[in-house]
Amino acid sequence: MKLDIAVLSGDGIGPEVTAQAIKALEAVAHNFDHSFIFKEGLVGAIAIDKTGTPLPDKTLELCVNTDAVLFGAIGAPKYDNDPSAPVRPEQGLLKLRKELGLYANIRPVKAYDTLIDKSPLKREIIEGTDISIYRELTGGIYFGKKEISKDGNVASDLCEYSKEEIERITHLAFKAAQKRRKKLTLVDKANVLESSRLWRKVVTQIATEYSDVSLDFLFVDKAAMQMILNPSQFDVVLTENMFGDIISDEASVIGGSIGLLASASIGDTCCMFEPIHGSFPQATGKGIANPIAAILSAAMLLEHFNLMGEANAIRDAVEKALELNLTTPDLNTSNPLTTEKVGDFIADYI
Amino acid sequence: MKLDIAVLSGDGIGPEVTAQAIKALEAVAHNFDHSFIFKEGLVGAIAIDKTGTPLPDKTLELCVNTDAVLFGAIGAPKYDNDPSAPVRPEQGLLKLRKELGLYANIRPVKAYDTLIDKSPLKREIIEGTDISIYRELTGGIYFGKKEISKDGNVASDLCEYSKEEIERITHLAFKAAQKRRKKLTLVDKANVLESSRLWRKVVTQIATEYSDVSLDFLFVDKAAMQMILNPSQFDVVLTENMFGDIISDEASVIGGSIGLLASASIGDTCCMFEPIHGSFPQATGKGIANPIAAILSAAMLLEHFNLMGEANAIRDAVEKALELNLTTPDLNTSNPLTTEKVGDFIADYI
Ligand SMILES: CC(C)[C@H](C(=O)O)[C@@H](O)C(=O)O
Ligand SMILES: CC(C)[C@H](C(=O)O)[C@@H](O)C(=O)O
Repeated sequence: MKLDIAVLSGDGIGPEVTAQAIKALEAVAHNFDHSFIFKEGLVGAIAIDKTGTPLPDKTLELCVNTDAVLFGAIGAPKYDNDPSAPVRPEQGLLKLRKELGLYANIRPVKAYDTLIDKSPLKREIIEGTDISIYRELTGGIYFGKKEISKDGNVASDLCEYSKEEIERITHLAFKAAQKRRKKLTLVDKANVLESSRLWRKVVTQIATEYSDVSLDFLFVDKAAMQMILNPSQFDVVLTENMFGDIISDEASVIGGSIGLLASASIGDTCCMFEPIHGSFPQATGKGIANPIAAILSAAMLLEHFNLMGEANAIRDAVEKALELNLTTPDLNTSNPLTTEKVGDFIADYI
Repeated sequence: MKLDIAVLSGDGIGPEVTAQAIKALEAVAHNFDHSFIFKEGLVGAIAIDKTGTPLPDKTLELCVNTDAVLFGAIGAPKYDNDPSAPVRPEQGLLKLRKELGLYANIRPVKAYDTLIDKSPLKREIIEGTDISIYRELTGGIYFGKKEISKDGNVASDLCEYSKEEIERITHLAFKAAQKRRKKLTLVDKANVLESSRLWRKVVTQIATEYSDVSLDFLFVDKAAMQMILNPSQFDVVLTENMFGDIISDEASVIGGSIGLLASASIGDTCCMFEPIHGSFPQATGKGIANPIAAILSAAMLLEHFNLMGEANAIRDAVEKALELNLTTPDLNTSNPLTTEKVGDFIADYI
């Protein structure tokens, strides 16, 4: 297979970890006889510094014209403390999601056996956890009308959802559940919000088309509790944009390291793959960033193109690295490897 | 002191646990020579069944004309699974908050030494945790304009905040921080939401009046992570209505039992005290409900009226019950006491 891949490595540790993901993909290309062509684009703080905007048109064009986007991270200290600055890195990310129509953000959360003891949660609580979170990514309060009164004293954000916006991600989530443990939990606040009631109605209707999947509902506040009290109860979790942001970041603590968590953002014509950790500016250039989340994002990319054997080759290599504790300082305090060495091991093992 | 107290015990286990809180208050009245007069009102599913509405005018009137409200719980299975039913118990609660102007919901979260091992989190993670969450309770997306299109295909909720709404709870939160460890964390999503940017602006301005308190900011998604990774970093947490709902329920798992968590809802003229556990219908009438959250809510009531010695008398009795493991089955599997017996012990000890 031939794939054109846009590489938007971004800020902070983004470039370092993305380089390891590329190495893994190159190893896969070599072994399985594919041709992956990587084309770099600017995004984030570095794009602001060089072009004045966090998402230059050239980058957007690149993404539209490639088969997939490999994303690193965005954010830099000089912007992070001033969320009302007129130009900020995350605007680039939000615009990218919207323009590419990436309406479904998928985050797997797994408790790796070898890492269970790193978790803030007790072993017996997290054992067996294997969740796939489907977060709607281009609607809701993130993209609704924002207003501020002339005198600056009243501000508002509109959370709006249409039936169509709910339907398309819901189908993806049910299809995923069919291939997994056949359980889907909708997280909403239908006892208070009109938009949540629409979610419940639409998802309930669609459920009739997937009769092999059992559907249940959880209010977002209760979901935030249950995610910690009993995470292994969840299979596929479906939710709107803002709730998904909160619940998936919360769930990311379960596995013991945010440095392991990958994500895919899917639309009808484009797709993007991204580690969920941020740009982690303090670690930049020190060789201490964990590249595994970026590498597992590359595995999600392969899976998206139905290259299952290839995706599993990456995952096996990652599990091997974890098993042998060939990992960065976040997971290995006594004898850590650098970002690059972990990447090398995984690429070699593939 | 003479206090008129409205008792809205509500549904499920509400009446059982509230009865124990009243017992504790009566013991305090007797010992410290106060006069507490209790007046019952209907609320929730039971009010719907008896009057057709979850908050009868008579109940509202009672609350307005008493010094404080002692609240039990609301919710019944026949309503819980249908959040789009026209009349539902939680409407009563929301209306009560709004009508009484209870704009600040305060939830203490503490890791009790004797209970640390019940927590899903590891001991070393939660040791020393002592958080006071200030959730705005009468604004934001809960009370903003709700719309549904004629064809039912588009639904929306408006999250709106005014400067005044933010100011009043912010002052309460800073004052609380001054009496505690002098740290305040504002939880928002100012990198995305206009309303969050207003929160940040107003809170930053007010901070100059409380120069002994250090202020920091955390995006709500990161807060959901940090609450589990490192809860003892927090002192006072201030946040808007919906984020407060999610984060405070999440935080409720830390202590190992939701049966211990009390809350106060404060306005300029009224105040209400409520355990945070719900109506727990499955447990109703079995004598297994933990009354401690309701009893600690009564302690918060006393504290609100500056009866500190009295509040501490209740808290000491609770700590004693925990220490001796004179508790209900949620905390004591081998030799549990009934709801009433726990209440008796605490009242006697006072
Ligand atoms: C950077 C920010 C706007 C973004 C979001 O909230 O969507 C991030 O937290 C994420 O979850 O990808
Ligand atoms: C019952 C519900 C409307 C309520 C809320 O969300 O405010 C509850 O979850 C709470 O936190 O007191």
